[in-house]
Amino acid sequence: MEAYLDNAATTKCGRRAAELMIKLLTEDYGNPSSMHTMGGKAEACIKEAGKKIAKTLKVSEKEIVFTSGGTEANNLAILGAADANRRAGNHIITTAIEHASVSGPMQRLEEMGFRVTYLPVDEFGVLKMDALEDALDEETILVSLMEVNNEIGSIQPIAQAAERIREKAKDALLHVDAIQSYGKRAIYPKRIGVDLMSVSGHKIHGPKGSGFLYIKEKTKIKPVLFGGGQQKGIRSGTENVPAIAGLGVAASEAYENFEEKINHIYDLKRQFIQEVTKIDGVSVNGKTGRDSAPHIVSVSVADVKSEVLLHSLEEKGVYVSAGSACSSNKPSVSRTLKAIGLRQDLLDATVRFSFCEQTTEEEVFYALECLKEIIPFRRKFIRR
Amino acid sequence: MEAYLDNAATTKCGRRAAELMIKLLTEDYGNPSSMHTMGGKAEACIKEAGKKIAKTLKVSEKEIVFTSGGTEANNLAILGAADANRRAGNHIITTAIEHASVSGPMQRLEEMGFRVTYLPVDEFGVLKMDALEDALDEETILVSLMEVNNEIGSIQPIAQAAERIREKAKDALLHVDAIQSYGKRAIYPKRIGVDLMSVSGHKIHGPKGSGFLYIKEKTKIKPVLFGGGQQKGIRSGTENVPAIAGLGVAASEAYENFEEKINHIYDLKRQFIQEVTKIDGVSVNGKTGRDSAPHIVSVSVADVKSEVLLHSLEEKGVYVSAGSACSSNKPSVSRTLKAIGLRQDLLDATVRFSFCEQTTEEEVFYALECLKEIIPFRRKFIRR
Repeated sequence: MEAYLDNAATTKCGRRAAELMIKLLTEDYGNPSSMHTMGGKAEACIKEAGKKIAKTLKVSEKEIVFTSGGTEANNLAILGAADANRRAGNHIITTAIEHASVSGPMQRLEEMGFRVTYLPVDEFGVLKMDALEDALDEETILVSLMEVNNEIGSIQPIAQAAERIREKAKDALLHVDAIQSYGKRAIYPKRIGVDLMSVSGHKIHGPKGSGFLYIKEKTKIKPVLFGGGQQKGIRSGTENVPAIAGLGVAASEAYENFEEKINHIYDLKRQFIQEVTKIDGVSVNGKTGRDSAPHIVSVSVADVKSEVLLHSLEEKGVYVSAGSACSSNKPSVSRTLKAIGLRQDLLDATVRFSFCEQTTEEEVFYALECLKEIIPFRRKFIRR
Repeated sequence: MEAYLDNAATTKCGRRAAELMIKLLTEDYGNPSSMHTMGGKAEACIKEAGKKIAKTLKVSEKEIVFTSGGTEANNLAILGAADANRRAGNHIITTAIEHASVSGPMQRLEEMGFRVTYLPVDEFGVLKMDALEDALDEETILVSLMEVNNEIGSIQPIAQAAERIREKAKDALLHVDAIQSYGKRAIYPKRIGVDLMSVSGHKIHGPKGSGFLYIKEKTKIKPVLFGGGQQKGIRSGTENVPAIAGLGVAASEAYENFEEKINHIYDLKRQFIQEVTKIDGVSVNGKTGRDSAPHIVSVSVADVKSEVLLHSLEEKGVYVSAGSACSSNKPSVSRTLKAIGLRQDLLDATVRFSFCEQTTEEEVFYALECLKEIIPFRRKFIRR
């Protein structure tokens, strides 16, 4: 038996999305910038995908800019907003538990002379609202928050944060890294006052190499890549029509029968946590109920190194991640786990299980069985 | 009948590449950064594609960095090299006929305070070597030249330029935009002293959203996108495994039976030019023989606007471009055509026909028939 429980790293691309991609690669393969019908068809596909996505967010399709993925969307949001608004101020706020595709650009901005505040989080990985309030000042031009943390599934109170920003630094832009929340939560950026929002396709059964940045109308942002002026000059380069169309399909599908699917994933999570915490020395990080993301469970296993556990599970066909997997295959100590104050000895004894709507109870219980077998066995070899 | 003669804008993705992509989207869909076997498989695909590409260039697979396409490769080369070498000097050289994905980053660098020299070209769109020699100085850190011009198919003498650079500014990097030449010419960057070289997948029957930058070992370059540190930190973001693998297949295929294919395309070009220039008021821009790219023919038609001609051809199923098509679907006056000194009245009376190895004689002769019919007819309506 196999159980792919690494859906926060990447997901299987859906059949409909993949089939559409093939068609656009091998039949209707025009360049959307070409002025003839084949170009027109390609352009229409982009528009169609934009509409599909816009519908899920209740925004206008004109506010969607397609990127090569989540990393590019985060880079464009952060570097692009900082570049366009530098005259208005020099201060940027983010949290200590962001994904590398946010903390990376932040470091870059620091090198360029921007002042960046990294807000702390509580033991559950949730932003301290007071800290945000204290950090906001008249120099603040951008606040970047991830909605769902990729390692422990904590959810940031984005709406509350948006309110604070409006009160204390009304011109500051709010960017949300929604890469782990889009498709798992209903998100309406306009309602809560989000200016920029990043999404990745391959986390929601869309193709790798796809993603988008929601850019609220009139938001000042500069491009990161320069060239032919596609996508209103915000993202030059021949649009990846097949991936964009595939992403459109995946986005629509993600929000079909949404409640049902999400309930299913929460159900898996509840059952998994209930059972896994019965194993001696096993604890779950962050919140565990409906106040956390449905699909991510961070499990610490005392006295078993995460790499060892990962490979033991893999031998049994259970695929999980040590840390976040999105970074590189050389694991380093997780900033998120440190930020929530996880015990030192558990920092490299933590693995992430992540589900999707296709994950079955059977898979989850199989993984649990494997854990029950592996953990005591692996512990025997540990010298304390 | 249909004739797709817009292969310099984009090409049909090959069957083998597309099939491999589907497999990697829907079956072996692991994240290459995941430490388990599914991640390992994905990583192996990237390596395999790198090897295939490296073989065509006679370089090491470690020197290949995958990007989301040609635009990103050009941006990474130019912005990344300028960023990494700023201390060594402030001067950059390019030509007046580069693609927007080169001239765009150049403009950006000028805004940042770099001095950029735009070299003139002769009436055939070929770089004046004296001008390069004169421009090179001890401040020069980068020279960026396109090998094949996307609008008129002129070929730059890259090897000669590399020699001049070695003589007059030996530490300056040489970047080649090979987006229109890779797959159409044998290119061995190491032999001629190229440090950076950009390639796009969708110009060679690979997938859209794929491309790479060849970066010679030890070349100093900084990233443009920041994040998880994939591809040795040069290009963060989950690798687009399906597109990368598809690109690998396309690259290999491009250089299979290479001479035969290229001879076929040159043959089409020769026949096309021979016939098209018999039409009254029709002229071909740039060189026309083996000293030009095999697949691009720029045709000026006195007294017929390019848009009119394009749409008339389209009605008959013949797809071509006005100008370069890569830029946007609002045509502006071509910098390339201006740079070669094309007569003012022909600037917006020029279309590009571009072939590939799959183009047939039948298609070319069909296009010619259409031209013979359309041109005199369209001219009737012109008031001089």
